Amino acid sequence: MPRIAYFGPSGTFTEMALAQLEQSGAFDGPVERVPAPSQGSTLELVREGVVEGAVVPIESSVEGGISPTMDALATGSRLQIVAETELDVAFTILARPGIDLADVRSIAGYPVATAQVRKWLEKHLPHAEIRVAASNAAAAEDVAAGKADAAVSTALAGERLGLAVLASGVADHDQAVTRFVLVTRPQEVPPRTGSDRTSLVILELSNEPGALMRVFAEFATRGIDLTRIESRPSRTGLGTYVFYLDCVGHIRDRAVAEALKALHRTAGRILFLGSWPTATPTGTPPPSDEAATAWLHDLEKGVADL
Amino acid sequence: MPRIAYFGPSGTFTEMALAQLEQSGAFDGPVERVPAPSQGSTLELVREGVVEGAVVPIESSVEGGISPTMDALATGSRLQIVAETELDVAFTILARPGIDLADVRSIAGYPVATAQVRKWLEKHLPHAEIRVAASNAAAAEDVAAGKADAAVSTALAGERLGLAVLASGVADHDQAVTRFVLVTRPQEVPPRTGSDRTSLVILELSNEPGALMRVFAEFATRGIDLTRIESRPSRTGLGTYVFYLDCVGHIRDRAVAEALKALHRTAGRILFLGSWPTATPTGTPPPSDEAATAWLHDLEKGVADL
Amino acid sequence: MPRIAYFGPSGTFTEMALAQLEQSGAFDGPVERVPAPSQGSTLELVREGVVEGAVVPIESSVEGGISPTMDALATGSRLQIVAETELDVAFTILARPGIDLADVRSIAGYPVATAQVRKWLEKHLPHAEIRVAASNAAAAEDVAAGKADAAVSTALAGERLGLAVLASGVADHDQAVTRFVLVTRPQEVPPRTGSDRTSLVILELSNEPGALMRVFAEFATRGIDLTRIESRPSRTGLGTYVFYLDCVGHIRDRAVAEALKALHRTAGRILFLGSWPTATPTGTPPPSDEAATAWLHDLEKGVADL
Amino acid sequence: MPRIAYFGPSGTFTEMALAQLEQSGAFDGPVERVPAPSQGSTLELVREGVVEGAVVPIESSVEGGISPTMDALATGSRLQIVAETELDVAFTILARPGIDLADVRSIAGYPVATAQVRKWLEKHLPHAEIRVAASNAAAAEDVAAGKADAAVSTALAGERLGLAVLASGVADHDQAVTRFVLVTRPQEVPPRTGSDRTSLVILELSNEPGALMRVFAEFATRGIDLTRIESRPSRTGLGTYVFYLDCVGHIRDRAVAEALKALHRTAGRILFLGSWPTATPTGTPPPSDEAATAWLHDLEKGVADL
Repeated sequence: MPRIAYFGPSGTFTEMALAQLEQSGAFDGPVERVPAPSQGSTLELVREGVVEGAVVPIESSVEGGISPTMDALATGSRLQIVAETELDVAFTILARPGIDLADVRSIAGYPVATAQVRKWLEKHLPHAEIRVAASNAAAAEDVAAGKADAAVSTALAGERLGLAVLASGVADHDQAVTRFVLVTRPQEVPPRTGSDRTSLVILELSNEPGALMRVFAEFATRGIDLTRIESRPSRTGLGTYVFYLDCVGHIRDRAVAEALKALHRTAGRILFLGSWPTATPTGTPPPSDEAATAWLHDLEKGVADL
Repeated sequence: MPRIAYFGPSGTFTEMALAQLEQSGAFDGPVERVPAPSQGSTLELVREGVVEGAVVPIESSVEGGISPTMDALATGSRLQIVAETELDVAFTILARPGIDLADVRSIAGYPVATAQVRKWLEKHLPHAEIRVAASNAAAAEDVAAGKADAAVSTALAGERLGLAVLASGVADHDQAVTRFVLVTRPQEVPPRTGSDRTSLVILELSNEPGALMRVFAEFATRGIDLTRIESRPSRTGLGTYVFYLDCVGHIRDRAVAEALKALHRTAGRILFLGSWPTATPTGTPPPSDEAATAWLHDLEKGVADL
Repeated sequence: MPRIAYFGPSGTFTEMALAQLEQSGAFDGPVERVPAPSQGSTLELVREGVVEGAVVPIESSVEGGISPTMDALATGSRLQIVAETELDVAFTILARPGIDLADVRSIAGYPVATAQVRKWLEKHLPHAEIRVAASNAAAAEDVAAGKADAAVSTALAGERLGLAVLASGVADHDQAVTRFVLVTRPQEVPPRTGSDRTSLVILELSNEPGALMRVFAEFATRGIDLTRIESRPSRTGLGTYVFYLDCVGHIRDRAVAEALKALHRTAGRILFLGSWPTATPTGTPPPSDEAATAWLHDLEKGVADL
Repeated sequence: MPRIAYFGPSGTFTEMALAQLEQSGAFDGPVERVPAPSQGSTLELVREGVVEGAVVPIESSVEGGISPTMDALATGSRLQIVAETELDVAFTILARPGIDLADVRSIAGYPVATAQVRKWLEKHLPHAEIRVAASNAAAAEDVAAGKADAAVSTALAGERLGLAVLASGVADHDQAVTRFVLVTRPQEVPPRTGSDRTSLVILELSNEPGALMRVFAEFATRGIDLTRIESRPSRTGLGTYVFYLDCVGHIRDRAVAEALKALHRTAGRILFLGSWPTATPTGTPPPSDEAATAWLHDLEKGVADL
């Protein structure tokens, strides 16, 4: 039974994402779930060979790239993304059984979570004191331990701790979606499906004027759709960046392959994070190469009129 | 006496940045400092006219753009940045007088701060329990209130609360620098100094292939040095972004003016955040326009041989 | 009475173009017409101050740029184009009075001209011997001197020499148009009319990879329509070129001015040939700068919400 | 014995180029030389199957692209260039035996030729009358027929007609070189040698803003060196062009293949004229693809650390 680490403790959205991956058949059978206390330590378990894979959140439609995950992927030996799944992120307000909304004087929450339900809290619990918890699951544990009356948490955490649901589907932004990825040590890239995502990191941009513009030109001239462009400081001073780029397509799509090779030659230091099937169709696939390749072969052979 | 809001409470790095701006003569005389509980609420006081200006952190050399500040600048009526200052971010470990490092069993810290001193804590306090605080200043208050033995905090907070300094200049990354900006309602842009920064936000990118590449081309073809490129999701679904761009130069530098106008015409929806003097020289100033303009005027007048 | 040189002798299309410019009011009154034996010598008369202006053919819709004119403009002290006119180029077949088509055994023609009526000759004079003449006007002179039975020439030449017209409007290509320009020593550029052409020569391209692509980018990023792009070898070896570029717009159009300045700064050695009103509307005018400039001024002044 | 057409008559530089190709082993043995009266008719003999190949001049270092050759290649069924050779173009001044330079009162010349020796004529024969001849070889024939005292011609023409050489190596421009190509019907492209030239024609550029800039970007982003860029009007009105592009490299160089495919997909209507070995090394070969391809295959296979 493969061991799969996840950003825990038990009851986090990440565990729910792992469960969703299991149901979708990402693994051949059941897996052993191994919680880890941070995105970085989750991925480190993969690098150390303690687990065969790890599930971490990578991008939120509200907050953007999940920085600790991005940083952990970009640092250390190369890891590879092989699958993804998406969760609608809506919170569940939990309390001990018997407690009503009107009774709530204090509410525990992970800061990222309370930020996403601020308007709901202002409307329904304007006078409750907000207490900082270490994670969504920890907020529920705080309620179970009597440290707060209620928690901004997940349904899964409520079930595990036997808490009551005061409200569910709570989110200030509709359609708040978080994408989670399954990460392994480098392995053969999953087959091209026609609806794929490729991800790479420009660890170090070549130090020439217009270098970044040329990176984008490598994609634009080949008709490749960039679906994610994020920068993070490279931690060597203000003003230098690491760029995280996702594009539509697979390393076995000719256009993507040629763009990757061009970046390898000229852009600086490039980290390939993988090509894998998308959870939902995104963007425009790269242009087919077939007609142009057939034309080229005819030219090489001297077929007459073209 | 002008009222200047800052991201508080008293004792934060932001208050130290405000003090530094006062000393550098950014205001005509003393100011009344008005703490606010978040970056967003700090800026909202400016929009509402409660204060004349506000100081907020905008970029960290370690963590990149400060998301709540960026989001608050990009949302709501236009605000303008008129000055900046930079702080070396190193933490001070505080405790009640009489407590030694060896006595510390629990330490309070704002999560962003404990993340930046993780290695130090592993080395010097490997067994201390880490407790979540709401801000750097709040961590010190927790110590004063007896909720923790020590705090990851600031020197200023220690002075205010009469705490002892167990260690100072604590930071895992050398040269961790944070930039803070002074924000006002729109006003006349400060004069060009020759060492200026201009900041803008692309709120909405025109929906054409290669649109982002063309944005970068507007700067590259004019020889303008982009010193900051960050993207944040536009909160309308995965895959659409708001871009934060800083460049070297001033809106009254011809090259910068022309790039801004070109973006206004073609790039989509642009928010200008201001031009102001840099705290430290950064990047390469835009090319001088003088020789080329003189050449152009000679051509218009028919000066003979060019 | 100003002296205006033209590519002669009397009776050439160029003299017809000069007449057309006179009728259109390009000069304040009548001019003295000074024929010169080549495009180069015509322009040299302007450089030497012997004449105030010169009319030369510059571009044919069939043959492209007229090389001797282009070379003569690009070499020597700077000259300036101040006006243009266009002629439909159709030839007149001339003979001595009393001669019919059926009698014609030999026909004189300037090689450029006979090339443009080859199909007509094959149909109407398949057995006539073609004799080389030094110009369109010289072909008519050859007929007058009895050296050939007929001439491929112009109506004007026929009138001057009292020859009969065997056929007129003769041209293998419909809509063969030639553009002629009036050239002076450098002078104040004619006022912008809104339908203008600007012409320049890149005498020497800066020796960097992608330099030519960047030249085109200076126009493309500013929305300037290039209507003519011709290259001629720079005569310093195979593979180096001089580029002749025409664009829609006037040096006093902001976009054109900025593009010229950018090329002056970075492209290499640039020769400005002038901005002048077009004979017929061509291409898309450069984008108006007014809205963007107003926006920019509002930003500089701090007008609130943009 | 293969039949090879050339731009004649006998004695032209083109026949000398054909002889040079024979000596270099471009054919398996001797060939039958078939003169044709123009570049177009020479190539038409190939299209009609009358000859197996044709030699025509294609580019002069002084005059640029040879327009009739370029036009004839771009019109009609596709032809293919399979070899090239270069000649230093210097003229021979011929006269009947016994005639000295001092005796020369008239000199016959093809206009292109007399243009290239104008300065020599002004110095050595300032009073001679210049008579128009139909080709370099025809000028020598005019001398043999007594129509002129001397001729601007070629050494080969002098030998054939038994004329005396008054001067040889005559050329106003040093290093005037003309390139000639061997053209066949489409056939398998000659093998890549590492020092190759590829030629194509953009017959029709896609009608989008910036289309030409994107064409150049396809080469620039792939590090391909363009060695020839010429435009000719497309004969459908002023302002539309056919572009002739030569680059360093072979259709079997990956970078060149990808650029051709990209142009095929997006640039409009493209005519491939061939890849063949250069006569002399020119420009910088396209970047090798090997290292990047090896890197890509390692990524696909999951090789660990890259």
